[in-house]
Formats: sequence, C-alpha cells, structure tokens
Amino acid sequence: MKQYNFAIVGATGMVGRTFIKVLEEMDLPINKIYFMASKRSAGKTITFNNNDYIVEELTKASFDKNIDIALFSAGGATSLEYSPIAASKGVVVIDNSSAFRMDDLVPLVVPEVNPKDILKHQGIIANPNCSTIQAMVVLKPLHDKYTIKRVVYSTYQAVSGAGMGGYKDLEEGLKGNPPEKFPHPIAGNCIPHIDVFTENGYTKEEIKMINETRKILHEPNLAVTATAVRVPVFDSHSESINIEFEKPFNIDDVKKTITNAPGIIVQDDPFNNIYPLALEAAGKNETFVGRIRRDESVKNGINIWVVADNIRKGAATNTIQIAEKLIAYWNEEGK
Amino acid sequence: MKQYNFAIVGATGMVGRTFIKVLEEMDLPINKIYFMASKRSAGKTITFNNNDYIVEELTKASFDKNIDIALFSAGGATSLEYSPIAASKGVVVIDNSSAFRMDDLVPLVVPEVNPKDILKHQGIIANPNCSTIQAMVVLKPLHDKYTIKRVVYSTYQAVSGAGMGGYKDLEEGLKGNPPEKFPHPIAGNCIPHIDVFTENGYTKEEIKMINETRKILHEPNLAVTATAVRVPVFDSHSESINIEFEKPFNIDDVKKTITNAPGIIVQDDPFNNIYPLALEAAGKNETFVGRIRRDESVKNGINIWVVADNIRKGAATNTIQIAEKLIAYWNEEGK
Repeated sequence: MKQYNFAIVGATGMVGRTFIKVLEEMDLPINKIYFMASKRSAGKTITFNNNDYIVEELTKASFDKNIDIALFSAGGATSLEYSPIAASKGVVVIDNSSAFRMDDLVPLVVPEVNPKDILKHQGIIANPNCSTIQAMVVLKPLHDKYTIKRVVYSTYQAVSGAGMGGYKDLEEGLKGNPPEKFPHPIAGNCIPHIDVFTENGYTKEEIKMINETRKILHEPNLAVTATAVRVPVFDSHSESINIEFEKPFNIDDVKKTITNAPGIIVQDDPFNNIYPLALEAAGKNETFVGRIRRDESVKNGINIWVVADNIRKGAATNTIQIAEKLIAYWNEEGK
Repeated sequence: MKQYNFAIVGATGMVGRTFIKVLEEMDLPINKIYFMASKRSAGKTITFNNNDYIVEELTKASFDKNIDIALFSAGGATSLEYSPIAASKGVVVIDNSSAFRMDDLVPLVVPEVNPKDILKHQGIIANPNCSTIQAMVVLKPLHDKYTIKRVVYSTYQAVSGAGMGGYKDLEEGLKGNPPEKFPHPIAGNCIPHIDVFTENGYTKEEIKMINETRKILHEPNLAVTATAVRVPVFDSHSESINIEFEKPFNIDDVKKTITNAPGIIVQDDPFNNIYPLALEAAGKNETFVGRIRRDESVKNGINIWVVADNIRKGAATNTIQIAEKLIAYWNEEGK
C-alpha cells in the first residue's frame, strides 16, 4: 500500500496530542511525519510510535517538503494564514478550526455521514465543531429513514473543549481558585456561554451547531435550534436532543436504525442503569447513544441522549478518519 | 395580627434545615413551633430565632397539640402515613414530597402562579417538584400572554436535589471515592437519570415535570416533554427551556413580561457575561432568567435559561410562601 507524508500543525495542543495518540492506535499508511507548532512550542520533543521527533516552528516554508496531508489544530488565525499556503503547495489540509467550515468551497465532513463530500475539496477539508459531529452520527441515519423536521439541542459540554486553559480552570476551581479562561467559575457551576455572543442572543457555538448541521446533512433550511452550556466535566460532551420527524415511526425501529449505524454504540438499558455517560465515553472513538424514547408532546418526536469524547470523535479522531477516507479515495483513483 | 402554631416534619434533613433558615428570614406570624423527625434524629437540638428546641420523634400523637400548619419534608412514605393523620386533626399540611401532588383533591401550588388553588385544600397542599417550580414562575406569565403550545425541558440538576447523600457523593467523588447515593460517579459526569425509570423510558422526575406543569397551569393536555440530568453542581438547578407559543410576539415584549413577573430576577446582558448561574442563585429565593431569545426553528418559539436554588425556591421557600399565602387568606376570612 502506498504511504503518505503527514504534518501535524498545533502538535503540542490538546487536540494535537490526541492526534498523536489516535494515529498510533489507527493504522494509517504514514511514510514521513512532521510535527509543527508556534515558535513558543518549537524545539519540544514528541514521541510517536516509539520514535522521538523535534517540533518544528510553523513558517511559510514548512510545506515545501512534499507533504500529502496536514492535520491542523492550532486555532482559527493560524489556519486562515497557513492552510492556503499549504494547499497551494499541493497539501490537503484537514482543518480542525472553525475558519473554513462554512466556506462553500470547503467540504465539512463527518466520515460516517457525508464521506463523498471529501471528493469536492480544493485543498482544504474542514472538521466540524465537536458538538455537531457527535449529533450528526446519530441524526444522519434517522434523517435518511424518517426525514428530520426540527431539532432542539441542549448541550452539556466538557471543559476540555476550551483546551488546556479550560481544563486548568476546572482543576484550579475545584481547589477554590478563580478562573482564567472562562468568564465565571466552572467548578460547581453551569455556564450557558461557549464562544462569543452575537447580536441575535445566540453564541457562536450555538450558531455553529445550527449551520453545520444544515451543511453536513445537505439541508440548508432544516429547522434547528441550540442552547450550548459548559458543565464541570473534564472530558466528553453530552447532549439532550429532541427531534421531530416528518414520517411516523416505531420506536423499536428507531433503536434498530441507530444501533446499525456506523460509529455508534447504543447504551440503552435504563432499568440496569445503562445509558451514555461522559466518564465512560472519555478516551473512546465512538459516539454513545441512549435514553431513546418517544416524545409524546409532538406528532413524530423522540428524545435521545448522546455522548462522545469531544477531543477524540469531536476533534482528533474525526479529523484522522477524514484522512483515512481521503487516502481510501486516493487508492481507488490510483493516486 | 393573629399568630399560628407550626410543626416542621423532617426538621433535620436538607430541606428541613432550610425551612428553618427561610422561616428566620421571612416574617411569619409564628406562635409556637415544633420540630419533628424520625426516631433516629429525635433528641437533637435545633436553634431557631436564637432559641433552642429539642427535636421530637414523629408519632401518631404528634398532632394532638393545636397545630395550625405542618411543613412536611421527610420523604413520601412519611407523608403518606402522617399527613392524613395531621389533616384529620385540623392541621393544614404543606407537603414537600411527591406523595399527593397528582391527587385531584390536593392543590399543587406555586404562590406566584396559582395561589387561589390553596383555597381548595382539604387539609393537604402539595409543594411541586423542584425542577417544575422554577419553570412555572416563568411559564405562567408567558402562557397568560402568548398561550403556550409546547415545552421542551432539558435540566442540569444539582446534587442537593438528592439530599445529603447526593451532596456527599459529589464531595467524596471529587476526592476519588465511589458513589453511594447515585448509580454512577457524579464528579466529572452528567447522569441522565433522576428518580426511577418507568416503562415508557422516562424517569419519574421527567414525568413529574410533565404532569405537574399541566396541573399547575390548569392545562391538562399541554404538550410538554423533558430530559432530566444530574450534573456535578452542589446547589441550584439550571434549565434549558424551549417554548413554542400559539400567538406571535415581539421578543422585547417577552423580556418585559418576564421582567415584570413576580419572583423573577432577569439576568440577560450576555455581552457583559450576565446570565443566570447556579453558583450565584445558590442561597437566593428568586428564580433567575436569562438567554431570552427567539427560536427561529419554529413559528413562535423562544429559548430561555432558568436557574434557581432547588432547596430554596425549589422546596423550602416555596413551601413557606404557600404557608404565608394560606395565612393571608385566613386573615381575609377572619380565621
């Protein structure tokens, strides 16, 4: 099998470190791999598959060395500056920031959901928002079968979604120290504020969930609303999702449809206290779904509870799964 | 002003202790007050308004001493056994358990919402579920003005809702110790399981929210659904509430309607990071409302974020406000 050259941009951040773990666990055909970061982190040593690598400083010349795929997770500003440079040199960038997600020329991909969108890329592929990815894995098979009419999201998001600063705020907050990353203490609190607020009263996180859901499902007018909340959990986002379908359904058939969908583990045996939990999803690549039940308040409705590791399936794992799929398409094409 | 004799049943529990604090803060016309609890807690000393009281064991003879009002918070089994005995002796019981809430002969009261239901009592008045109370305070003025069509609740509930055992599980869990009260660790976790599960896949907590909302708003067929979740917060329940109205509205008018409603403090200035927070609501008697915004996914919809101290407004404060209103009605009647 042909092997490819990889670059990891933002290698020392929270998602960057998880890229490394997930790449070690999965079996991608890697020839050379380069680790890049800002000047501040350059020079650090990273161990990958038992070899040590020195982190390079990211510069405009970084992509002059025959790289096939670059996984970016270094923030929107870095992506905006360096992704086009990489793409212009023939690299395919898979970008974890929000910089290009709503760009019409950039595919926004969850591999279980819309893998063929990868084929439309023009050098950059975007990885969706963490909260959106885990919902998409469940919503897609349900949409195909019952046609989604409306979605109401309420999220319970882990501090790791705010990077190491978020993690530290909760750790220090539990010791009684004030927050530095969040606008309020997160220990013992729920903060209905993720990313910045916009004029219509929604946060950018909520707007991402609405817009990205529509783009990934190819339903530009789908009725979606969201409330995004930070909770004092270190890892894994949980979501209460209320869905209304156009078509009638049998609830056992809904459960079967979810069970048979790729990337999902159904945990739905409430009498035995089995339902998805943030603590149990942490470190896993799958999306966990439970509390699947009919919502009697509307004609064809359900409520579900969806949990996934936001740094894995919500970021690193999904990005690497996009790379894996891209390589599979290249192999089909004989590239 | 006439004074009345009170009994506090379950005086040593989490809600019982808060009864005492709230009674000290409010100015009810108390003549005598008796503190009662199970045999296990009898003999303990309670300080109320700088006087010491010995906790009496609750027995069938406890209500043989000219008590006017008994505030019960000692669990459903105790309420089921002792409330009818108290009522038969002329005591008005205000019961914090779920035992009588859906009984057609028992008013279920939030004083800001349906105070006149108090007048229909036959010896027992029920205090609603904590999650329901804080929602009712907001939903009632909106229902009066715009007619609610459907409600979707997702809750973020504090461990204090599970009493001292819940509190202890979070304290010990943060030190790495296993849970005793909850079926799973609550530290760093979200548990979509409050009270027991029923055959339709909903928990009793969720069913309480649905049924009690209908009873308190006098809308037996109102479309309501709920997902109730325990989060690692010590005090105050938060709720993401999606509401659909029959009538169109202006969002500023919605904000004004909520602002002018009794028992509510609006905290809704997101650009200055002002919205309701569990940590800030703790110890307060009001319900805090913010993130008030139009939901564009449906004809006449809004999303709101509602927070209140579940042991105060969700339990002790509301119970004592019912007593206060009952006394006001007695005074009007000249009792």
